[in-house]
Amino acid sequence: MILAPVVNIAEICARKGVEQVVVSPGSRCAPLTIAFARHPRIKVHTVSDERAAAFIALGIALTTGKPTVLVCTSGTAALNYAPAVAEAYFQQVPLLILSADRPPEWIDQLDGQTIRQQHIYGNHIKHSYTFPADFSHPDAVWHSERMVSEALNEAASFPAGPVHINVPLREPFYPAPGEELTYGKVKVIEEEAPTYALSEGQALKLQQEILKYRKVLVLAGHAQRHEALLKSIGSFADTTGAVIVGDIISNIHTLPKAVRHQDVIFANADLEQLARLQPDLLITCGKSTISKALKLYLRKYKPKAHWHLQPAGQVADTFQSLTKIVRCAPHSFFTAMAGSTRSDNDFASAWTAATKAASVFLQKYTSEAPYSELPIVARVLQQLPRQSSLHLANSMSVRYANITGLQPRQQVEVYANRGTSGIDGSTSTAVGCALTSPGITTLLTGDLAFFYDRNGLWHNYLPQNLRIVLLNNHAGGIFRLLDGPRQQPELAPYFETHQALNAENTARDFGMAYTSVQLMEELEAALPGFFAAEAGAGILEIFTDSTANAEAFEKYRQAVRGLKLL
Amino acid sequence: MILAPVVNIAEICARKGVEQVVVSPGSRCAPLTIAFARHPRIKVHTVSDERAAAFIALGIALTTGKPTVLVCTSGTAALNYAPAVAEAYFQQVPLLILSADRPPEWIDQLDGQTIRQQHIYGNHIKHSYTFPADFSHPDAVWHSERMVSEALNEAASFPAGPVHINVPLREPFYPAPGEELTYGKVKVIEEEAPTYALSEGQALKLQQEILKYRKVLVLAGHAQRHEALLKSIGSFADTTGAVIVGDIISNIHTLPKAVRHQDVIFANADLEQLARLQPDLLITCGKSTISKALKLYLRKYKPKAHWHLQPAGQVADTFQSLTKIVRCAPHSFFTAMAGSTRSDNDFASAWTAATKAASVFLQKYTSEAPYSELPIVARVLQQLPRQSSLHLANSMSVRYANITGLQPRQQVEVYANRGTSGIDGSTSTAVGCALTSPGITTLLTGDLAFFYDRNGLWHNYLPQNLRIVLLNNHAGGIFRLLDGPRQQPELAPYFETHQALNAENTARDFGMAYTSVQLMEELEAALPGFFAAEAGAGILEIFTDSTANAEAFEKYRQAVRGLKLL
Repeated sequence: MILAPVVNIAEICARKGVEQVVVSPGSRCAPLTIAFARHPRIKVHTVSDERAAAFIALGIALTTGKPTVLVCTSGTAALNYAPAVAEAYFQQVPLLILSADRPPEWIDQLDGQTIRQQHIYGNHIKHSYTFPADFSHPDAVWHSERMVSEALNEAASFPAGPVHINVPLREPFYPAPGEELTYGKVKVIEEEAPTYALSEGQALKLQQEILKYRKVLVLAGHAQRHEALLKSIGSFADTTGAVIVGDIISNIHTLPKAVRHQDVIFANADLEQLARLQPDLLITCGKSTISKALKLYLRKYKPKAHWHLQPAGQVADTFQSLTKIVRCAPHSFFTAMAGSTRSDNDFASAWTAATKAASVFLQKYTSEAPYSELPIVARVLQQLPRQSSLHLANSMSVRYANITGLQPRQQVEVYANRGTSGIDGSTSTAVGCALTSPGITTLLTGDLAFFYDRNGLWHNYLPQNLRIVLLNNHAGGIFRLLDGPRQQPELAPYFETHQALNAENTARDFGMAYTSVQLMEELEAALPGFFAAEAGAGILEIFTDSTANAEAFEKYRQAVRGLKLL
Repeated sequence: MILAPVVNIAEICARKGVEQVVVSPGSRCAPLTIAFARHPRIKVHTVSDERAAAFIALGIALTTGKPTVLVCTSGTAALNYAPAVAEAYFQQVPLLILSADRPPEWIDQLDGQTIRQQHIYGNHIKHSYTFPADFSHPDAVWHSERMVSEALNEAASFPAGPVHINVPLREPFYPAPGEELTYGKVKVIEEEAPTYALSEGQALKLQQEILKYRKVLVLAGHAQRHEALLKSIGSFADTTGAVIVGDIISNIHTLPKAVRHQDVIFANADLEQLARLQPDLLITCGKSTISKALKLYLRKYKPKAHWHLQPAGQVADTFQSLTKIVRCAPHSFFTAMAGSTRSDNDFASAWTAATKAASVFLQKYTSEAPYSELPIVARVLQQLPRQSSLHLANSMSVRYANITGLQPRQQVEVYANRGTSGIDGSTSTAVGCALTSPGITTLLTGDLAFFYDRNGLWHNYLPQNLRIVLLNNHAGGIFRLLDGPRQQPELAPYFETHQALNAENTARDFGMAYTSVQLMEELEAALPGFFAAEAGAGILEIFTDSTANAEAFEKYRQAVRGLKLL
């Protein structure tokens, strides 16, 4: 027999909109597994490696926009979730973690799979709850039902994130043979979220303030594609002449007006040119920025004012110039501020000219450069299916993609684990996205990130719309691109860390189509078939040489340093 | 340039006896990596997957008995250590974790690979330190040196365990080309550990008390092989007639006198027989006990008194009968108590008879049973090279091995991650043991544990003395052996979780010898060559059928339930 309040966790989750649950098998968590597995409105996936399971849940939550539930057994299972929990925390993705535990009297008594699970996620969780272990008093039932509602409300409210309920469970863990579970009448607490709209009074005040500025730069940080935001930023720029810039992970590239190739522009060594791009008002929204060149530029060429738009929560001063936090939904701000000022023509046209110069340069470089990772990534990105999803692994994959960028007409939606920027869960996250997306989901990854998270493919749900583009240089190639490590005698053994694997055996293990290429012509020939809808799950492994990559990239860097932008 | 106090972390570690460091590559941690890599008395291994790296360090610390240092970069790297850190905490293994971090002012500013690393291991760490970020005041240098000494003293003192120093680092991360590191004159704090000897007064008092008891049972918990302890327990038993029992992970099996097959004995259903084995004084030492049958027996047939020997730290009341904690080294207790009482002959002879009956039964069962996991494990264990090491993975591998046991003359040393009993790091831990052991190290593992931790083989240090015996039933076979789950409709999809992999591609990936068997005769033919010293690193994959295993094991259980012991 499973206790009714435990069965009803599944019922409350279903009533609150949860549709997907990722379970890692265990005996202690069996009551939860069975409660979810038998629920008619919930889909359960089983993934054995909890680290991968949690990143898969993150991917599912990213595409569905709904809290995804994770269920694990007692012991270190919950600790293996920790990297994905931290990523969800900083990427603001709603997860509900249900960890089975022994009842309190059996903690630290040397029984198997028993650790100290309360508050196990430290500072990387929105809230940690302990489910009641006894229900002899009716208030405990009220407590348990309230807790599940509260946890899901908390996970979804801005900024969204992970919430943990530790669930102590006593035997029996299984219903008697033939026993049916009854999902009871539960109390559910709905939450009507705030709109975070700018008030008329606030809008008037800010419209007055913004008139002081004639060089307005909008910088969009990491965010999922958000139509209302894109539209409002577009109108704001059209009516004020403000310049819009954003990394590939901001999904702002679907706006034709947005600056492209800022990574090329700000790698320039000509300070006089760059000075003409300095804003007097910087307006930011969203989360992190990848481009180190852009960050260093803005820290050096500080705007007079920096306004950051964020409904709630702690705010970062990424550019060391923050002067105002506007507590509203960014699209509400941009809508209210349309036409509120008029940028200098010089400022906007300098940005346009720089974008154009960078674009022309990049096109020439990527078409003429020898076979190496940057021109390879350019080719791959050009060939992505329209309206598909692209998941960018850390660390060089997302950087290369940010240099080459995407065309607005491609309408590709970009995902990347830039909450913590780890290499630990990119494959699993892409799998989670693919599982809940109708179109092709492409993962662009390096060999270290790919093999690190190989267990993201180790389950029985391999999505046929998944495409993995693997840049294999048999090492952590980024270290050969950095001035510091490449001058050290420790480069090869302790930084690059040569690794011998290729993905052919992995593809065989998981029944995926496999193609490898070693020449640009082979790559170009392979891409259309690889991306074809009917091709099924596949790995396209692109072999390059780490030294050749470093040489080609060094030439790119030399060229952009001296590029004439204006 | 790397700051002197950071370079000197390596010097203090070397002075305090650290010999082995496991590094996971990163840019932020480069100063630490270089400081250790250039140190003449320290060996550095590079392992990319931090989860595996930490378990490899655990294995190294287990065999060397010295604190092993882990170095990782900032971000989720440190979180991937968490499962091994928890295992080290509960298994009491000394580790020093050095996590590179951004300086405090850059936390939560949306830079890459930045999380909240202070106190990241919560309740599973002995101590968490924060290294100074600035050394303008000379006291900061004193603080930094003191901290490394303190941390290593803390890691090694009883109960040993993991200690964490979070190290904020500012650029530059690399020495200038050609710049030499200087290991300075550092202050080191030595620690002379307590002997935890029983005083004469205590010994006299306990000798008086023990006279009340005539049925003394010594139960040894999880521990590494410890010659002085084995010798003292042997003498105590010889001179008092006390009965000695211990699971395979207690390493007590090297004592010919120790009870064998307690898992068989206590699975018996005849309460009258079992009542004759009830002790009036239970004396325990060490950590956990695997045998659920023995635990349930002792919780039901409680001794009049239970003394637990443990020098320091929190004590578990595993059998719900604890009456006295003796704060001394167990071998000191047994030495002092030799000859202090005299057990009833009936008690000791009942245990001897039960052991003999269990042994005869088991020999017959394992030689006659159809091809299935329990008789397979018996064959494998019989063939282990003398004086080799055996690492037992969770969960069924260690249970099977505990049923069949080892012969004293084999002198095999047993390791198992029974601190938390996770399946997450067995392979890596065995690799760490093999790296620092002269003889053959055998890992006995199931398929789930093996593929979960496949990255334990993903580095450039594959030890040639490693042998992996892989019991592949393509599922979490334990669930089909348990009454609860095997009666559920969810058994196959959500508990067993069929997995399709076999290890042939893995062996190919990592350049290991590979043999697979599907019949008992094939197994018997393969074992001698597999264990030969010159065979090199290899995987012996033993395919079985999960249903056949469950049927054979059910017959075993029926038989032991009705076994005539006395």
